[in-house]
Amino acid sequence: MLEDKNTEKTSLAELGEFGLISHLTKHFKIYNSTTKKGIDDDCAVISAGGKETLVTTDLLIEGVHFDLSYMPLKHLGYKAVMVNLSDVYAMNAKAEQITVSLAVSNRFPLEALEELYAGIQLACDTYKIDLIGGDTTSSTKGMLISITAIGIADKEDIIYRNGAKATDLIVVSGDLGGAYLGLQVLEREKQVYQVNPKNQPDLDAYTYIIERQLKPEARKDIPELLKELGVKPTSMIDISDGLSSELFHICTQSKVGCKIYEDKLPLDPQVISTCEEFNIDSTMVALSGGEDYELLFTVPISEFDKIKGNPNLSIIGHMTEENQGMNLVTRANQEIALKAQGWNSFS
Amino acid sequence: MLEDKNTEKTSLAELGEFGLISHLTKHFKIYNSTTKKGIDDDCAVISAGGKETLVTTDLLIEGVHFDLSYMPLKHLGYKAVMVNLSDVYAMNAKAEQITVSLAVSNRFPLEALEELYAGIQLACDTYKIDLIGGDTTSSTKGMLISITAIGIADKEDIIYRNGAKATDLIVVSGDLGGAYLGLQVLEREKQVYQVNPKNQPDLDAYTYIIERQLKPEARKDIPELLKELGVKPTSMIDISDGLSSELFHICTQSKVGCKIYEDKLPLDPQVISTCEEFNIDSTMVALSGGEDYELLFTVPISEFDKIKGNPNLSIIGHMTEENQGMNLVTRANQEIALKAQGWNSFS
Repeated sequence: MLEDKNTEKTSLAELGEFGLISHLTKHFKIYNSTTKKGIDDDCAVISAGGKETLVTTDLLIEGVHFDLSYMPLKHLGYKAVMVNLSDVYAMNAKAEQITVSLAVSNRFPLEALEELYAGIQLACDTYKIDLIGGDTTSSTKGMLISITAIGIADKEDIIYRNGAKATDLIVVSGDLGGAYLGLQVLEREKQVYQVNPKNQPDLDAYTYIIERQLKPEARKDIPELLKELGVKPTSMIDISDGLSSELFHICTQSKVGCKIYEDKLPLDPQVISTCEEFNIDSTMVALSGGEDYELLFTVPISEFDKIKGNPNLSIIGHMTEENQGMNLVTRANQEIALKAQGWNSFS
Repeated sequence: MLEDKNTEKTSLAELGEFGLISHLTKHFKIYNSTTKKGIDDDCAVISAGGKETLVTTDLLIEGVHFDLSYMPLKHLGYKAVMVNLSDVYAMNAKAEQITVSLAVSNRFPLEALEELYAGIQLACDTYKIDLIGGDTTSSTKGMLISITAIGIADKEDIIYRNGAKATDLIVVSGDLGGAYLGLQVLEREKQVYQVNPKNQPDLDAYTYIIERQLKPEARKDIPELLKELGVKPTSMIDISDGLSSELFHICTQSKVGCKIYEDKLPLDPQVISTCEEFNIDSTMVALSGGEDYELLFTVPISEFDKIKGNPNLSIIGHMTEENQGMNLVTRANQEIALKAQGWNSFS
């Protein structure tokens, strides 16, 4: 039945990931009063009578999300943890626990898994996270990692995606597009290597962007910094799929529009030079390149003085009324509509 | 590197699942005071200041844990939830939330996933569980489901694996071996079908055991029953890998031995008749057949009167001092040593 290529069937690529999840889960009910937040944020929120507990989960699959020909296993383990911690920090919460489930084919010896777990452990030690459970099993092909992260926060501290107001400032941490460009460099070197295995790649000019791809850091420091500055964002999300896509989530859930400025997008010099080398538009990379794991948030305009000039933060625009849509103001002062370009693993 | 067949490498099959998890995680530290229990029970336990939160996770892989040629997708969705809820009930807790992560190849149309989610939803509606998150992505091959279940309990109600005392009675709910035998029948019918697709199987004689395999129920009712009876077990575990393997966990963690009686093992008549037909020893099936999702627990001998005669519960033996080991007393009154025969997906 499953192999039936009947034309009445609907292919998954048509829906994309977000469409698929909302389609499949739209009829589910909430039964328990402990469930404070369900599917549509970086984490779910549960209250068991004390502080709130936050839960997020991510699946990483060889050949879809990572390529072991240039991703060392230790980095993979580290990154798999970061991807999940980033979701907890995006709720303004403290990440405390993870579970790790792993499926591997017999082609992997124990020593390979030790490398992977060395990376997971480095992440746990660096971010003070407890590994509390998991499941390890064989797969028929390749490697798959499923991580669930659990965090904690006072109820009043949690920041959702739906609190942005029409005049709020839009702020991002760090810089954008590096992880995507790092991947382009690694893919190119892989192809060179396949043609001539003796070629020794010189990657010195790309160290920053390759590190952004292979060893990203979740921004644990940003919620701490915001607390120090005395700023509470009205909405927050982590940038995993790309700036446009994340802005789309905040705008949709907060029922507002947004206007961002091309000349305000934070770009590392290595991103700019590599974009020139690859002949790619750096603005496109900043808008649509995923995996930076920076935080995107909105703050009331009254907080401008606390944010401006901070080397970790860039004000890139402001929210607008919903009917004005999502727009980018170019360097030439033209206004163009932004498209949400979330990453679709099914296409 | 990974494909290197160097003889110094250690194959995963040598360690098995339990050995592998403990090998890979032995150097991890606990950093957070909210972590009350880590890796070695049915669930991890977290305290955020109110009631305790319990977390468990399981990975099910096509070709390893299920075969879609006889497992309808709706049943698969239902069973994947049951496997996780069972771990929460085995801690004497109330299951309240799940996250569902799914990886599927493009061979599955949307309608197939709708069937799967119909089963997940039926489980959620029947057991009053909230679906609070997940991740859906493509795989390079087949289907994989990773579920995390979250429960809640008062601290004093949680039952771990390590509390059994040397004179405690050993009790199991329901009956054993049905799910394993149901699988044997389905495997046989699959082979018959492959030889002659026109053959119509008559499965009337196997309805109970096939249902045990395809649509198991987690024993939510047992913690409730124990509360009614005024009995608090000293240790508890769910029977997913087989009675011997679960007894081994309780004995090891509680530092006791055990003695169980062959003639006390609860067997359904359909299990006995199918064992005869397949020429398999029904005691072996009860001891080593997995996936029954019954609960195994120990109670002080003073609770004998409250348990005996209850149609849902069977007293199958008692704990002993640790140095007496794990033993089975046969119908012929011979004592033989029990072996833990956990299921090893790597072998």
